[in-house]
Amino acid sequence: MIIKKDANVPEINLTGEGIKLVSKKVLIGPDDGSSNIIMRRFKVLHGGNTPFHSHDFEHVVKIQKGNGMVVNEKKEETLITEGQSLFIKANEYHQFKNPFEEPFEFLCIILNPKK
Amino acid sequence: MIIKKDANVPEINLTGEGIKLVSKKVLIGPDDGSSNIIMRRFKVLHGGNTPFHSHDFEHVVKIQKGNGMVVNEKKEETLITEGQSLFIKANEYHQFKNPFEEPFEFLCIILNPKK
Repeated sequence: MIIKKDANVPEINLTGEGIKLVSKKVLIGPDDGSSNIIMRRFKVLHGGNTPFHSHDFEHVVKIQKGNGMVVNEKKEETLITEGQSLFIKANEYHQFKNPFEEPFEFLCIILNPKK
Repeated sequence: MIIKKDANVPEINLTGEGIKLVSKKVLIGPDDGSSNIIMRRFKVLHGGNTPFHSHDFEHVVKIQKGNGMVVNEKKEETLITEGQSLFIKANEYHQFKNPFEEPFEFLCIILNPKK
């Protein structure tokens, strides 16, 4: 059994096209012995956003702190907040934005794409 | 894309040998189109516990609210609290207990065992 403090997990500031003020922590992943499920925590600061993108694997999302906007394939925006969960299908375009003052934090859980 | 309020998800009071004051919500699962990853939220009330048990699939756990005790294979107990994540291997015995006043809530993410 692995028991970790999220505060001790390295935080990676993401860079790349369409990414702004987003950081990632891999809370549980292959380094912990979890070869199938990877649980990442993303933080989007005020004015930041993930790219409008898709992957060929599904995402399970749990909002942890703050508020954000999620953009769907039709580019419609929906407010999302603590106490909400999302499912994003494989190959479905999506984006997260934070126009709010407080940092927006969510878990994004995926299957290991390398398997 | 599915966007859900956790408050609207049915809460199931679990019964069975070794289970006391535990409820479950399937926040994201097959009914939402997620055939691989299942995200459940468990709540253990004061004095409650899950059974000391194992499964043949791994668990990724994220503490959401309150404090609890996790019991490992050697029956050693460790305090776990918000801001912590756990990985429990397949076939590893474990148990969650809540000796504290406040409800103890955690996410437990698994691969769909029916696949």
